[in-house]
Amino acid sequence: MNEKISYSLADIAERVGGAVKGDPDYRIRGIATLEDATAEHLGFLANPVYAKFLSTTQAGAVLLTEKEASDFQGNAVVLANPYLGYAKLSHLFDPCPRVSAGIHASAVISASAEIDDSASIGPKVVIEDGANIGAGVRLDAGVVIGANSVVGENTHLFANVTVYHGVKLGKHCIIQSGAVIGGDGFGLAPGPDGWHKIAQTGGVIVGDNVEIGANTTIDRGALGNTEIRDGAKLDNLIQIAHNVIVGEGTVIASCVGISGSTKIGKGCIIAGQAGFAGHLDIADNVQIMGQGTVTKSIKEPGVYSSGAGAVMPTREWRKHAVRFRQLDEMAKRLKNLESDQT
Amino acid sequence: MNEKISYSLADIAERVGGAVKGDPDYRIRGIATLEDATAEHLGFLANPVYAKFLSTTQAGAVLLTEKEASDFQGNAVVLANPYLGYAKLSHLFDPCPRVSAGIHASAVISASAEIDDSASIGPKVVIEDGANIGAGVRLDAGVVIGANSVVGENTHLFANVTVYHGVKLGKHCIIQSGAVIGGDGFGLAPGPDGWHKIAQTGGVIVGDNVEIGANTTIDRGALGNTEIRDGAKLDNLIQIAHNVIVGEGTVIASCVGISGSTKIGKGCIIAGQAGFAGHLDIADNVQIMGQGTVTKSIKEPGVYSSGAGAVMPTREWRKHAVRFRQLDEMAKRLKNLESDQT
Amino acid sequence: MNEKISYSLADIAERVGGAVKGDPDYRIRGIATLEDATAEHLGFLANPVYAKFLSTTQAGAVLLTEKEASDFQGNAVVLANPYLGYAKLSHLFDPCPRVSAGIHASAVISASAEIDDSASIGPKVVIEDGANIGAGVRLDAGVVIGANSVVGENTHLFANVTVYHGVKLGKHCIIQSGAVIGGDGFGLAPGPDGWHKIAQTGGVIVGDNVEIGANTTIDRGALGNTEIRDGAKLDNLIQIAHNVIVGEGTVIASCVGISGSTKIGKGCIIAGQAGFAGHLDIADNVQIMGQGTVTKSIKEPGVYSSGAGAVMPTREWRKHAVRFRQLDEMAKRLKNLESDQT
Repeated sequence: MNEKISYSLADIAERVGGAVKGDPDYRIRGIATLEDATAEHLGFLANPVYAKFLSTTQAGAVLLTEKEASDFQGNAVVLANPYLGYAKLSHLFDPCPRVSAGIHASAVISASAEIDDSASIGPKVVIEDGANIGAGVRLDAGVVIGANSVVGENTHLFANVTVYHGVKLGKHCIIQSGAVIGGDGFGLAPGPDGWHKIAQTGGVIVGDNVEIGANTTIDRGALGNTEIRDGAKLDNLIQIAHNVIVGEGTVIASCVGISGSTKIGKGCIIAGQAGFAGHLDIADNVQIMGQGTVTKSIKEPGVYSSGAGAVMPTREWRKHAVRFRQLDEMAKRLKNLESDQT
Repeated sequence: MNEKISYSLADIAERVGGAVKGDPDYRIRGIATLEDATAEHLGFLANPVYAKFLSTTQAGAVLLTEKEASDFQGNAVVLANPYLGYAKLSHLFDPCPRVSAGIHASAVISASAEIDDSASIGPKVVIEDGANIGAGVRLDAGVVIGANSVVGENTHLFANVTVYHGVKLGKHCIIQSGAVIGGDGFGLAPGPDGWHKIAQTGGVIVGDNVEIGANTTIDRGALGNTEIRDGAKLDNLIQIAHNVIVGEGTVIASCVGISGSTKIGKGCIIAGQAGFAGHLDIADNVQIMGQGTVTKSIKEPGVYSSGAGAVMPTREWRKHAVRFRQLDEMAKRLKNLESDQT
Repeated sequence: MNEKISYSLADIAERVGGAVKGDPDYRIRGIATLEDATAEHLGFLANPVYAKFLSTTQAGAVLLTEKEASDFQGNAVVLANPYLGYAKLSHLFDPCPRVSAGIHASAVISASAEIDDSASIGPKVVIEDGANIGAGVRLDAGVVIGANSVVGENTHLFANVTVYHGVKLGKHCIIQSGAVIGGDGFGLAPGPDGWHKIAQTGGVIVGDNVEIGANTTIDRGALGNTEIRDGAKLDNLIQIAHNVIVGEGTVIASCVGISGSTKIGKGCIIAGQAGFAGHLDIADNVQIMGQGTVTKSIKEPGVYSSGAGAVMPTREWRKHAVRFRQLDEMAKRLKNLESDQT
């Protein structure tokens, strides 16, 4: 919590299009859960499970819907969507250090790169030939931008991100540390003397308002581009293979792997550790549950799952897993019994 | 094997609280398995499977329990736990280069950072404002330490580790290359115009004696902290989401993903590629087998598994996998047959 | 597409041992799929699925087998294996910037390191004591080479690769950004006071013509070496634990995890997210399908799968997953019915 920053409830309400119930001059210095909040904090109720804490919370004020606020005794900011309000207000208290425009003396910048004056280029950053860094861009320590790559306005690359040559990043993107964008796709042709590498001559196009998580890898296209479209959000340690397309507003949780040339639609939600075969076409608004096995295209929106279910004690599990290997035989025996029956 | 270093068996026995059987002045220059050892090596017997090599090993000496030593003709160091002895002695022969205290000329250190004189700061290291680097800390090449972060005594960060702002690392930790600690948690609120990022205003607290593997990612908390507690050991390519707590002494193998706000107890052992849903509570001393699907809280210690079992020839597997999609129908038909029976 | 580069069909045919059908002086400026190609492009037909595009392609010329070429009206380069031809020719149009020999002024090179004059050492590279960098090697920005490590001739490390001490990389290897080679294996011995780290005193040996993907981690051996043998190809985000051996020409897709001391044979193909337990022995020419669970050694070549099959609508899936937990009981009831029958 930054001790120096505070906002009045009136100010906060205005920022989220809400109304103050209580003291508009009450000052807030941070956000916290209802359980943890003290008098300096703004709390919020986004999940009905936590409604029980409303009666005991020490929060100085709470973000509430009109209905919830009616029963609440303390200060409140009343709005239609408290969780969205929390998201917007959270940035007021973000401890991420601000930086100023300019190029750190230790950065290595090609003479042919173009850097907007309002960009902030951190220590040890390397920018190769012909790269273009837009207004308000922030490149933290150790970032490498390859030749002829473009970083759009107000995009922020945290420390030690690697962007290869010929990559285009849109505006207002956030790339977490260790992400690698534009590495070679995994293209190999078998020959009589072993595997031959196929040069990956395409690029990567990342749209606007995209977030890419720590140590996520997005390969360049073999021919043509890999694309992460506007508003897509990718968590950590995700693998995006060459020529994949991730649709607008799609959210992908950590450790997901998407094989080459698969196209994920708009507004999809992919849970952790799901895996996609290559050359698939996934419709818009598809939701894949955790560890999902996606080996065929999906044409209908909806929620999809796979697997044999959650963990159970290993001793018990073993009995069932053994039976899985007898399943086809069991099915045939069942059919035999039915035939005998009739 | 460092040719210059050698230790007498008497010295070795003293270091592990053991007793020499044979020549106490015999000198050891390295450690090896019973199978690979030569006269210069100390061997060890930790797994009874390898007892067969005792009669043929060329090892100059062997770490053995009293029982095993009674039948062994060669030099031995006798102790209660040979594997633990091996662990302790292994460090004598660690080829990892030693470094000396001081700050490399190419490092970029904020004027407001505090660096203990005994710390070793390698080439290209970047340390941001207000960071605090403790005694005996070692930061290898290219490490980035964010603003106001703290690195405790004798902690070693290998090359190209990224630590964001507001992260606290304890004492005697080891962080392998490419690890990212303190990246933004994956917090998004849906709005009418797409996903809104929730600023991740919490931090990460890593306890003492923690090891974090290469390219593992540990996100900062949304509100409050993500915690990796004392003595926890994390392998490579693990994802720890925001506000996760990993309990004391818990061991996590590679490629595991743990979703937001899940709490893992003390002394757990999580095998590779296991996945945890968010907001779970896992008891102490729980063991999860490889690729385990953990979607509910676990209240009892024990060993847990999931999945349909190990690989089999694909042609055979296909027959069973098809039946899995008929399983509910099969169960109903089975019940019908039973009803008919009575 | 690099506008300045062009090749005649005669030249192209010679490079792949093929024959021109049509105009040998026709000039090609890039490669594209049959669907996307324009008059400047060379197309290719590698997958019969795309044969339908042959009649409509705008490609200036197409790589075809003799049989396919006989019906084709346009320019063609006729050869036995068009896909292999494409692989070889793709490098002519690779937009990856070329570099020249020499050491960037911002690199930090130990006085005891040996760097061949023909090597290209990029900005911010760090090379530690006793390392040896061969002829034609290319180390891009931010690469770290640990003490006494060796990089063989013509090997290319992309930006921000980390190589620890005592690692040997062969010739003609390609290592993508963020890969970590030689990190400590995950070796722990339980003691009365918690886990004791086992120093990882072995190294890593990478053969010739190996490719290692972005953010892949290859741990050093505990005792003895981890080995990636000649011609093996590893995709992104793979975990190779200590003392693993990956055989010659084996291909591993992304997000695979291989536990300690497992030996993978030659010519294997491991699909994405497969997981291997430790101490296994996998025969040559084994193919493991995606997300495969490999918990036992495999002695016979062939294709292997596991799991409960592909995703289905969650509502439907739930019914089957519940039955998996009743599978053993179902099997017993089935047997009872059969007994009653007789």
